[in-house]
Amino acid sequence: MKKNQSKRKYYLENIPLKEAIDKFNNSIAESGFFDNVNTINISLEESLGKITSKPIWALESSPHYDSAGMDGIAVKASTTNKASEKNPVELTENNEYTWVDTGNPLPKDKDAVIMIEHINQISNNKVQIFNSIPPYENVRRIGEDIVATEMLLPKSHKMRPIDIGACASSGIETIEVISPPKIAIFPTGSELVPYNTKPKTGQIKEFNSLIIESMIKDWGGEAYRYPPIIDKFETIKNTILKEINKYDILIINAGSSAGSKDYTAKIVESLGKLIVHGTAIKPGHPVVLGLINKTPIIGLPGYPVSTALTCDLFIKPMIEKVLKNQTNKYETVNANMTRKIASSLGEDEYIRVNLGVIDKKIVATPIKKGAGIISSLVKADGLVLIPRFSEGLHQGEKVQVELLKNKEIIEKNILVSGSHDIALDLISSYLSPKVFISSSNIGSIGGLISLSRNEAHIAGIHLLDEITGDYNITFAKKYLSNKEKYHIVNLTYRTQGFIVQPNNPKEIKSLQSLINKDIRFINRQKGSGTRILLDYQLKEENINPKNINGYDREEYTHLAVGAAILSETADVGLGIYSSAVALGLDFIPLAEERYDLIIPDKIIKTDKIQNLLELLNLKKFKIQVENLGGYNTNHMGKLIETIG
Amino acid sequence: MKKNQSKRKYYLENIPLKEAIDKFNNSIAESGFFDNVNTINISLEESLGKITSKPIWALESSPHYDSAGMDGIAVKASTTNKASEKNPVELTENNEYTWVDTGNPLPKDKDAVIMIEHINQISNNKVQIFNSIPPYENVRRIGEDIVATEMLLPKSHKMRPIDIGACASSGIETIEVISPPKIAIFPTGSELVPYNTKPKTGQIKEFNSLIIESMIKDWGGEAYRYPPIIDKFETIKNTILKEINKYDILIINAGSSAGSKDYTAKIVESLGKLIVHGTAIKPGHPVVLGLINKTPIIGLPGYPVSTALTCDLFIKPMIEKVLKNQTNKYETVNANMTRKIASSLGEDEYIRVNLGVIDKKIVATPIKKGAGIISSLVKADGLVLIPRFSEGLHQGEKVQVELLKNKEIIEKNILVSGSHDIALDLISSYLSPKVFISSSNIGSIGGLISLSRNEAHIAGIHLLDEITGDYNITFAKKYLSNKEKYHIVNLTYRTQGFIVQPNNPKEIKSLQSLINKDIRFINRQKGSGTRILLDYQLKEENINPKNINGYDREEYTHLAVGAAILSETADVGLGIYSSAVALGLDFIPLAEERYDLIIPDKIIKTDKIQNLLELLNLKKFKIQVENLGGYNTNHMGKLIETIG
Repeated sequence: MKKNQSKRKYYLENIPLKEAIDKFNNSIAESGFFDNVNTINISLEESLGKITSKPIWALESSPHYDSAGMDGIAVKASTTNKASEKNPVELTENNEYTWVDTGNPLPKDKDAVIMIEHINQISNNKVQIFNSIPPYENVRRIGEDIVATEMLLPKSHKMRPIDIGACASSGIETIEVISPPKIAIFPTGSELVPYNTKPKTGQIKEFNSLIIESMIKDWGGEAYRYPPIIDKFETIKNTILKEINKYDILIINAGSSAGSKDYTAKIVESLGKLIVHGTAIKPGHPVVLGLINKTPIIGLPGYPVSTALTCDLFIKPMIEKVLKNQTNKYETVNANMTRKIASSLGEDEYIRVNLGVIDKKIVATPIKKGAGIISSLVKADGLVLIPRFSEGLHQGEKVQVELLKNKEIIEKNILVSGSHDIALDLISSYLSPKVFISSSNIGSIGGLISLSRNEAHIAGIHLLDEITGDYNITFAKKYLSNKEKYHIVNLTYRTQGFIVQPNNPKEIKSLQSLINKDIRFINRQKGSGTRILLDYQLKEENINPKNINGYDREEYTHLAVGAAILSETADVGLGIYSSAVALGLDFIPLAEERYDLIIPDKIIKTDKIQNLLELLNLKKFKIQVENLGGYNTNHMGKLIETIG
Repeated sequence: MKKNQSKRKYYLENIPLKEAIDKFNNSIAESGFFDNVNTINISLEESLGKITSKPIWALESSPHYDSAGMDGIAVKASTTNKASEKNPVELTENNEYTWVDTGNPLPKDKDAVIMIEHINQISNNKVQIFNSIPPYENVRRIGEDIVATEMLLPKSHKMRPIDIGACASSGIETIEVISPPKIAIFPTGSELVPYNTKPKTGQIKEFNSLIIESMIKDWGGEAYRYPPIIDKFETIKNTILKEINKYDILIINAGSSAGSKDYTAKIVESLGKLIVHGTAIKPGHPVVLGLINKTPIIGLPGYPVSTALTCDLFIKPMIEKVLKNQTNKYETVNANMTRKIASSLGEDEYIRVNLGVIDKKIVATPIKKGAGIISSLVKADGLVLIPRFSEGLHQGEKVQVELLKNKEIIEKNILVSGSHDIALDLISSYLSPKVFISSSNIGSIGGLISLSRNEAHIAGIHLLDEITGDYNITFAKKYLSNKEKYHIVNLTYRTQGFIVQPNNPKEIKSLQSLINKDIRFINRQKGSGTRILLDYQLKEENINPKNINGYDREEYTHLAVGAAILSETADVGLGIYSSAVALGLDFIPLAEERYDLIIPDKIIKTDKIQNLLELLNLKKFKIQVENLGGYNTNHMGKLIETIG
């Protein structure tokens, strides 16, 4: 696979976000794009959430006749002039009064209504009244609500349920609204296959277009997804040329960088005007902004986190501008960063964070993952922007967080830091939406450090003390301040062992097998309980880690170790039984260990922690954990010790 | 039309809102309604905004193979061990390296990738490298993002675009979500006709079901609208019986009170259990809450403002509960009441308000209109709750306002108080969505008082000084503090005269015609400029108002006067030419008057006022105002005088 060199070398620019948007917007505005807004007549029933393209004027008055505002009798007000409690006036039916219900038309010869409660019926066709009333008392007059020709709604108004009612009441059956912009999405990449087909090795499911499509729908646009196009300049170019007239805006996904197979910028330049190629944002740097005649064309980068972010930054404002609608800003909260985070000067950097309330303050913990990790954006509660003039955020710094989830979640989040355990996922699935578990898999010792710094509510750990042979207590005492009280509560006992391929083809039996050079080991990261267990066992058996092929290759979770073995890029790793079961792998037990939750006393009485503890004592839940395999829940939810 | 008496007399209860909701919820919960949530499998493409009914677990790992994370060459890390700037290592193609692009699978015999930028190609199949790299450098490992079997999303999660992408990337094609509750809406009332038919006198367009339907859609439910049902106990009951099994929730609209034709409560009692009949809220008192087997049935009152409010109070929480979703609370702001407002003890009262920023504070001005006035809810910016233990709000009191429009509107609102003028509607239609005009038609003097109390930005007045013969200045000086500066800016000159039926059948010629008893006059309210003009002219001609038939019948706008004449409930009224034109009525000119805007100096430089003044000097706009008829725009936008 040689590098193809095109005639002109493409380099990514690094244009600040605001400047890029301004440049792009000016070009689009000059092209007349925003002036030629398409409109469409739709029925009231379809109009919810649509934007009016001109003011709406009432066609009929409402009410359209004078009507009774109460149940009672319609009278001529002048006939009541002399009525009083002492001198009631007698009226005769038809001639002097007519029975009416609310909404009935007022008879032509009557001009007021007396409530039924204020009438004394003395015979079949005679009543007494006790009060005089002025003309038009208890009458809903014609046009009292809406008069024909008055303006009901201004232009650029987003139709609400009540607006639909008001239109219907005043004779309107259809309204003119702005047509949602039609936006085509072209995924490019020879390795791509539609998301609902089974990919072979080397093929990747194309799912970015689903994200873009859903975002466009959310913002009121109309999205049209194309199947993946192969990475050939002419093929992509011809597709664009063939389809461009059907749409208002085009999106090409991936190929927006400056590599040999990145054709987006070249195609835009060959068909129209390349306005921006590369913006100073991270993730999302390689963005293409261009114009082909009057049609804006945007190249979005391919890593899903970048795709989503740049779609929000560049596509959302265009849709809002076409729909002339007030922008829908995301909700924000202020929070304090739990950790220092570095950022390069010159780039606006968007950091994914998890949020939780600790000591009555909202804290934001950065999720440090690449732009390729879509699950990191799914798990994130919000985004923090580090401006391009800043080198980063220091610990405790106050930041504004743009929320990616409902604000109520923040208060419900339990931030669990430490070792990864599958039972934690199960807790989360049981407790939501009352309580959410937001877990950072940073290893047991990382979890304790996090807890000591007030970055997490709970640490989840399984740390063997080589001297006492006991678990967790020594380490908790070592890493946590003795000025605070902590409860060590057992989550579960679990079996650690070797995860190997089905039927154990390499015949791994014990630690000694690992020194065979043909056997590719995959390790867990330093500071993880599993790593400590491994190192302890190796020392016990006098095995030098240097003799293990793959000792330096680290993964952060049991499942990731299992996945590597499943894909046959490794032969064996140390992990918990449940990961082997989950992935259909074989397992050779090595030791049983204790996994505990360390819970600060100051939060133990809160609703969310109480919910968690109740769950740990629920029989149904224990059984389900045991069903994962390799778990012993006999002590689940039991207090092991209180320290501090 | 006699009153029918049913065997049992129905009285409205007055149950506090929370108690009513609790009673209702407990009964529903006991019935098992919330336990039997229906679910449905849908494709990912349809899942945006839907609520997961169970956790979603990844079916495949992503990436599903080890792949190159960069463009470059795949190598075995151990072959790079000795490479350095000084001692580059030479590698041979295929055997020692393979070209890869980002996303390509890592060849089985390779375990790392070197970026293309760090390579020197020395011949067709040989490269030099200058750094040693560890295994798995620049490799996207299998399961790095998502490992099969891990939990992707909890249950009760509202699907976002990024979630759809994550599901697609991990092998999920369909997901199980909660079925939206199916809700039937039965409008009742013999006077009702479908909204898209032309009603006769005595018939009313049925549009409440459109409001309810749209609200349900907005909240994620599925609504089914029925055509209006006539007011007969058996007919309504039989329809309910026939249709009940198709739906999760039933709504009967109107007939929820305790009058002779109010059947909802009786029907609920005859078919199931009547739980609440009447709650202590205003508007919206006559609500019916009941249960027929496991199906909740709600009777909503018929006045549209009550319908909308009670739908929000009783239907929204049920849908949210079924969908197990975090509640979508309305946005709120704090504001200060511009006026005192009384409220009866014992009822939670919801007040419609307009909002604007005056002196940097958000102020809320109550809209005092009946529950039958749907336009009042359309125009309102928010709702204020006066709790049932309070007798009202005092002027300046701080209140929390639930927003009915986008928050951004508040800052853009120009609150215009005073006399009604059709040109004001036109201003609004031109300026939106940059600036919104929110006008209170309380008459010219009312407008000045409002302005003096800082309740409005601008007063719109046309007040004749009987002594000087000039307009507005004398009154502005009288009602406004001389400590502040105000600019009197002309909006327009306009012709006042008699509005009469087409072809003037009563042959009205002058003021003298009004003393004919056969001629029914309709007046404007006290304090309005038109009323002052009339009274001045009557005095000039020595006409005693008592001799005018209808002098006491008051309307608040020119259009309302026109509407009364159009409907032939009056023969003549004083008003502006444009209202006659708008409604196709005839007009006899009486006088030309000046209509001015009074603008405080302190706000004259603000963007929104500058936008307004620019518009008043726009030729295109002047022409359009003149086209309304009876307007002279020669001085439009000109400063008449600055006072104070």
